[in-house]
Amino acid sequence: MRIALAQINCTVGDLAGNTKKILEYICRAKEQEVDLVLFPELAITGYPPEDLLLKPQFVTDNLAALRTIVKDCDDLAVYLGFVDRQGKDLYNAGAFIVKRKVQEIYHKMNLPNYAVFDEKRYFREGNKCSVISYEGMKMGLGICEDIWVERGPYEQEAKKGAKVILNINASPYHVSKINERAKMLKARAKSTKAHVFYVNMVGGQDELIFDGGSMAFDPQGKLIASAKQFQEDLLVFEIKGKPVISPWPGNAAEVYEALVLCVRDYVGKNGFKEVVVGLSGGVDSALTLAIAVDALGAQSVHSVFMPSPFTAQQSQEDSLAVAENLNVDYKTIPIADLYCEYLRLLSSQFEEKEADVTEENLQARIRGNILMALSNKFGWLVLTTGNKSEMSVGYTTLYGDMAGGFSVLKDVPKTLVYKLVEWRNQKRGEVIPDSIIKRPPTAELRSNQTDQDTLPPYEVLDPIIEAYVEDNKMDNEIVKLGFAPETVKKVITMIDHAEYKRRQAPPGPRITPRAFGKDWRVPITNKYRV
Amino acid sequence: MRIALAQINCTVGDLAGNTKKILEYICRAKEQEVDLVLFPELAITGYPPEDLLLKPQFVTDNLAALRTIVKDCDDLAVYLGFVDRQGKDLYNAGAFIVKRKVQEIYHKMNLPNYAVFDEKRYFREGNKCSVISYEGMKMGLGICEDIWVERGPYEQEAKKGAKVILNINASPYHVSKINERAKMLKARAKSTKAHVFYVNMVGGQDELIFDGGSMAFDPQGKLIASAKQFQEDLLVFEIKGKPVISPWPGNAAEVYEALVLCVRDYVGKNGFKEVVVGLSGGVDSALTLAIAVDALGAQSVHSVFMPSPFTAQQSQEDSLAVAENLNVDYKTIPIADLYCEYLRLLSSQFEEKEADVTEENLQARIRGNILMALSNKFGWLVLTTGNKSEMSVGYTTLYGDMAGGFSVLKDVPKTLVYKLVEWRNQKRGEVIPDSIIKRPPTAELRSNQTDQDTLPPYEVLDPIIEAYVEDNKMDNEIVKLGFAPETVKKVITMIDHAEYKRRQAPPGPRITPRAFGKDWRVPITNKYRV
Repeated sequence: MRIALAQINCTVGDLAGNTKKILEYICRAKEQEVDLVLFPELAITGYPPEDLLLKPQFVTDNLAALRTIVKDCDDLAVYLGFVDRQGKDLYNAGAFIVKRKVQEIYHKMNLPNYAVFDEKRYFREGNKCSVISYEGMKMGLGICEDIWVERGPYEQEAKKGAKVILNINASPYHVSKINERAKMLKARAKSTKAHVFYVNMVGGQDELIFDGGSMAFDPQGKLIASAKQFQEDLLVFEIKGKPVISPWPGNAAEVYEALVLCVRDYVGKNGFKEVVVGLSGGVDSALTLAIAVDALGAQSVHSVFMPSPFTAQQSQEDSLAVAENLNVDYKTIPIADLYCEYLRLLSSQFEEKEADVTEENLQARIRGNILMALSNKFGWLVLTTGNKSEMSVGYTTLYGDMAGGFSVLKDVPKTLVYKLVEWRNQKRGEVIPDSIIKRPPTAELRSNQTDQDTLPPYEVLDPIIEAYVEDNKMDNEIVKLGFAPETVKKVITMIDHAEYKRRQAPPGPRITPRAFGKDWRVPITNKYRV
Repeated sequence: MRIALAQINCTVGDLAGNTKKILEYICRAKEQEVDLVLFPELAITGYPPEDLLLKPQFVTDNLAALRTIVKDCDDLAVYLGFVDRQGKDLYNAGAFIVKRKVQEIYHKMNLPNYAVFDEKRYFREGNKCSVISYEGMKMGLGICEDIWVERGPYEQEAKKGAKVILNINASPYHVSKINERAKMLKARAKSTKAHVFYVNMVGGQDELIFDGGSMAFDPQGKLIASAKQFQEDLLVFEIKGKPVISPWPGNAAEVYEALVLCVRDYVGKNGFKEVVVGLSGGVDSALTLAIAVDALGAQSVHSVFMPSPFTAQQSQEDSLAVAENLNVDYKTIPIADLYCEYLRLLSSQFEEKEADVTEENLQARIRGNILMALSNKFGWLVLTTGNKSEMSVGYTTLYGDMAGGFSVLKDVPKTLVYKLVEWRNQKRGEVIPDSIIKRPPTAELRSNQTDQDTLPPYEVLDPIIEAYVEDNKMDNEIVKLGFAPETVKKVITMIDHAEYKRRQAPPGPRITPRAFGKDWRVPITNKYRV
């Protein structure tokens, strides 16, 4: 039997576009004489459709799309995801289609309602396993989470004789998640003594990245097929044929490709053609620019350098070098006159008060205004450049460097920023000069400022952030990891106090197990303190 | 038997503060010789604690707080909400405490996971009804949602002999919700043939308003006691005594009081002492200022008028009149010079392109910067002034008039803004001049601009927004309500396209059944279109 895993990039809400793509892949599968092709979870609607599911017409339209697809399923079987409705209840469903007929509908039994998932907001749980017979082979149906749970539906289906497990997914990426999936699938293949066919979605959807990497295991737990990661793919293989393996990038390459995919999709799916990045001469904006160029091509990317009286000559040289190395449009717009005009205007209000963060924020906000003016005038999407370390502790200006449509490094800690820069320079051409990498990080918002005036070294800060944000650890537990109690307390306090800023931040790609987005639901009004 | 409903204002995360308040109310109940006092759902943690619940230490601390409270429950019985834990599972729980002992723990059986609620993200469902006996009276326990469902635990408890139903709540406000509650409770009292004691939380928590209005019904469905709305209250009554009734404000007064409470709590619970409002001379900023003054007192409120070359003399006179009528600090900071400086700086970039929304946004963003500079320098929280009609269709500038910490009218449609102004003028003193009310609304960002150049009249716009946003109606259904198809389509398209702006908006009080906040989870990347 010849199987295809159709790892497609769906767009949320684009029922017509998703249907067209599904039909194209069915056509390609037929050309390759495939017997059974699998499409991702909720392939018709895209994932996650969120509150579109509360619109009855949206669900009706998705059912009409399914009927269109069914008509094309003549020479092969198809298992794909859609939204089913019974009375007023919705189900995250899979349709098994043979000979232009829906032979079986499966309703997802395990609905994730943790982390980035809200499936119980929309769906009822299914309560019935499905074992179907196709070309003499018994197959067990299921969707995504169903395969992660112990003693889930697949185990029951195997007991009922299923020799093949069909699992369709929209599984969001985080670093190394693909290895967790492979390990689990291997175990599930062995425990059920069945072939496991796992198809995943690919593409960016707001903050979520679906990384593809679809795969198949034989009943001994051996990987017999794997699709590319971060790209669309039609993975075709014989159930008892030679392995068909695409290697996965791994490590820094994996994160870099994830960011490139997510930027490309956010920009493209939202109808933008060009983007603009404010360059500071620092490593974050340099990396953001490189990612933008790799995602969209240099001709679609603009860069703007906005020096103030506090900007070093080095910053100008370095930012220009990055733009030239990447072949990107580079403008210089100095902000000194505007900054003086604001100070003049406000001086009577500020009386004799000393300069403080107010004046620093003003500079950042002038830059934000300029980028937004270019965005408004030319339709360029502003990419912001702040990293996760800064977003965590609030070392960032609301409406200043935070102003923009998509925050590329929002979930990338500073220490990982350096690793990505190193990887990009080594593997895709040296574009970010050493002088940027070696210079101590600075916001250049006052004289002789460095990040470490305010923050602990990033090698200390980042693991504390990881422990607090991703692992929900308390201060005393973090101290036990080997950090000074006063440092831990200071960092946690900064993270807690910055909640109001994060609430107004643009979205950005999630690459860790817990990003500041759908999986971070922390009240602003919150008096719980360490 | 003498009952007290302790309608308290809890703060999320403030375990020590909430505990202290609970003990004070227990003390007051003892002084009034109460036999049984009820506290709201999750009174110890505040509601909703959101992802604080993912911190094991937070749950542990809440259990310690419960033990502290138990020690004080000597002369009376207490039923109050806390987070229970069994193994790794959490429960939204109620403790019935008698004689310094927890006599019974109830686990909420119906966990709302729709609208603003995410309870299934955190809690497991309880599976056991609780009927306890206290002073010879059988009482059925439950929490919030449990009483809304047909054939819920209270019905079973009544069958097991419960003559009194104890229901503890953190029920968020929207317009006229209190009447829905009263109707349901009356019906539940009759169907169970039991006394129903309903205590609600009071206070603002980020976007949510808990409006209090606790109440009690006898088995015939007669209201025998009601607490104040929008204030703390200890409602004490005899189970067979004279009715104790506080009247509720209703209509415009209800919404106005809700906004005042939410502003006061957002400002106070987040540690701010003063706020600043940008006055435009229009009705939204005038109303926002009045609410701020009623919430915080005039001495805590600052107002700033920031005229541009497009600002009419009338706007200056009107804004000054409002500030004087409200006795509020009033500054004038003209933005013309800064605006010219931006235009000069950007002219070489903009080449010969015509003026468009870019130049309008620049003015709004200069004003945003000035307000934020005052906020940074003096620690004043910026209150933004946009209304729901504007937030819906994106008639608002990101980082401009949207810049600030709390968006007071975010969920108030423009037509309701006028009603609130009328009510405030009539009932609390005429502070907003007629000239503001009668003038056609304008953003004054270009010459002779009015809102109706861009938008349909608010009497048309607001019901379309309500149908689309609150009722999930589709275009053809809205047309059937009596609106022109092209108007409906235009409005829906504007609402869809403004999603990216809303995502970066500050929080604001929810007063309708569906606000732009926790209950509006619409993807930005979304190709579903009417």
